[in-house]
Amino acid sequence: MGQAQHISTDHISVDGAQRPLLVGIDVGGTNIKIGLVDDLGRTLAYRTLPTEPEKGAEDAARGMSDCFRQMVQETGLDVQDVVRAGLATPGPMDLSAGILLTPGNLPQWWNFPIRDRVSHHCGLPVTYANDANAAAYGEYWRGAGQGSHSMVMFTLGTGIGGGIIVDGMLVDGAHGAGSECGHIVIDPRPEARRDSLDKPGTLEAYCGSYGVVARAIEAIDVGRKSLLETQRSNGNSITPLVIARAAEAGDALAREIVLETADYLALGCVSLIHVIDPDRVVLGGAMTFGGEQASLGREFLERIRQTVPPRLLPPLRDQVNIIFATLGGDAGYIGAAGLARLEYHAHA
Amino acid sequence: MGQAQHISTDHISVDGAQRPLLVGIDVGGTNIKIGLVDDLGRTLAYRTLPTEPEKGAEDAARGMSDCFRQMVQETGLDVQDVVRAGLATPGPMDLSAGILLTPGNLPQWWNFPIRDRVSHHCGLPVTYANDANAAAYGEYWRGAGQGSHSMVMFTLGTGIGGGIIVDGMLVDGAHGAGSECGHIVIDPRPEARRDSLDKPGTLEAYCGSYGVVARAIEAIDVGRKSLLETQRSNGNSITPLVIARAAEAGDALAREIVLETADYLALGCVSLIHVIDPDRVVLGGAMTFGGEQASLGREFLERIRQTVPPRLLPPLRDQVNIIFATLGGDAGYIGAAGLARLEYHAHA
Repeated sequence: MGQAQHISTDHISVDGAQRPLLVGIDVGGTNIKIGLVDDLGRTLAYRTLPTEPEKGAEDAARGMSDCFRQMVQETGLDVQDVVRAGLATPGPMDLSAGILLTPGNLPQWWNFPIRDRVSHHCGLPVTYANDANAAAYGEYWRGAGQGSHSMVMFTLGTGIGGGIIVDGMLVDGAHGAGSECGHIVIDPRPEARRDSLDKPGTLEAYCGSYGVVARAIEAIDVGRKSLLETQRSNGNSITPLVIARAAEAGDALAREIVLETADYLALGCVSLIHVIDPDRVVLGGAMTFGGEQASLGREFLERIRQTVPPRLLPPLRDQVNIIFATLGGDAGYIGAAGLARLEYHAHA
Repeated sequence: MGQAQHISTDHISVDGAQRPLLVGIDVGGTNIKIGLVDDLGRTLAYRTLPTEPEKGAEDAARGMSDCFRQMVQETGLDVQDVVRAGLATPGPMDLSAGILLTPGNLPQWWNFPIRDRVSHHCGLPVTYANDANAAAYGEYWRGAGQGSHSMVMFTLGTGIGGGIIVDGMLVDGAHGAGSECGHIVIDPRPEARRDSLDKPGTLEAYCGSYGVVARAIEAIDVGRKSLLETQRSNGNSITPLVIARAAEAGDALAREIVLETADYLALGCVSLIHVIDPDRVVLGGAMTFGGEQASLGREFLERIRQTVPPRLLPPLRDQVNIIFATLGGDAGYIGAAGLARLEYHAHA
């Protein structure tokens, strides 16, 4: 079992916690994050477990429960204070049936009734959510979106995930598949770039890590001089991280690729702002080029902030705030706990 | 004052009406539609007034009230049974302050506190809404969206309007400017077609009536033979209606323009379906090429229905139903009444 780690959210003591308490569980392909969270979204305790998908989903559900019970014991809590669990997993899923369908990174878990099995082992009712949606809700509740009326989040990584919260309500759709912000179409041409699912012209095709790398490689292939070309000649793969480092080292092509990514992402922001009219747009995930802490990340954000407003309808211009996420990898379990809390209070 | 007209919604008698009653008012540049609607969304009485914007907004607010009181009297109703008014106008507007800002088709009414003045004259609390949003809510409540969990509506005309309802809630945004579905970006190129607000690459730039006509004229200008060219040589303007008639008469170019419009609109549908995951997408407005009643309209819809699913993520494919609106010009006042009803029941 993993150790408690530094996280960016507030930590509080058991005595200071506001009841009822929730447990938030965020299942990833590598790790499972579990946190005990109070009614105000503050973390009392936190653990990570290795996912070990090859051992099967039933084993993992049992492991989540063991971890949860151990955390309760170690913190000296009364287990009765914990009223509900929030469980976030990758999709696709059948939200209403509580079934994990066919997630690409958890092939051994396909078609597993995960909500009810986790509920059985933990002895708690479980609220089930898509992981990107849970992360967005976490940011809305306790992170970059705190205090906003409505928020759109883009999660930048291999794919482009998303989450939309309107007036406190997560937009998860009629079939639990809403907020797929990476799959909006930004290029109508049949010859447009294709994403990992072979769909042409989507935002993900241009801004997902595969699209970012492909744009760099194509530029090298037509003869652009770049540190990236040297990397490739030395047998190294070009990744978004390699591109970010080259850009930070002053490589012109790498910098261009990063800013071009900002330009494409800005189009996605423009579309979502017109559709949702949020007061915050939050950018999170692994591919924010260092985020607020890095000059490249800040330049990336600044470029988006400059590109978006001239494309907005007048009543929206200057109203929206585009910012980086603040909870990092904790957003998922905090958001899952927050969604469980919503369901608890709705029925209480 | 106009006469009661045939409308597509149910008409009921005063005795059969379910209390409380609402009055819905839909303000357009030419006419104001006013309907008395019951708690189930059925129309008891309906009138149209000429807008006559040049007489000023205060005069119009008084006219709405006179019309409302006359309808109550003529139907033999007790005015006490009418609990609230819903008022829909074109934007831009300040929804929370209840002020009509600077609508292009009502220049004499700019910056008018319309919500409070209509409330004053009618003696009723007023719920204020954007007209496209109200029409979408009308379709959701009593029209093509009835019984759905969530719905996206595109209103096709000079501009492309929109309305989104999620789980019974209208998505009108943090600044009352949400659901602007015509302003999503579908083409990233700087040289992309521009819309009426000079924004490049928006859905409206391709599918708004101006974009449809521009595409036809450009094809003629590069030498395409077409009935449209004959029209133009005869000094007639090319309009979407002219294009539709030429397409119905078998003109190949006109038919191409209509189907190309369907292809662009399909991209907008794909984006909104990924963002919202609705169970219905509703197409309304003046530019549906005759809609369900015309073979061209049915062909237009069929083309969209064929283009959308291959572009959707697997969990969304085959789940969404794309259909024409059914309430026509009545959607606005019915939806305005429905939004007033929501607010009434929330506070009752």
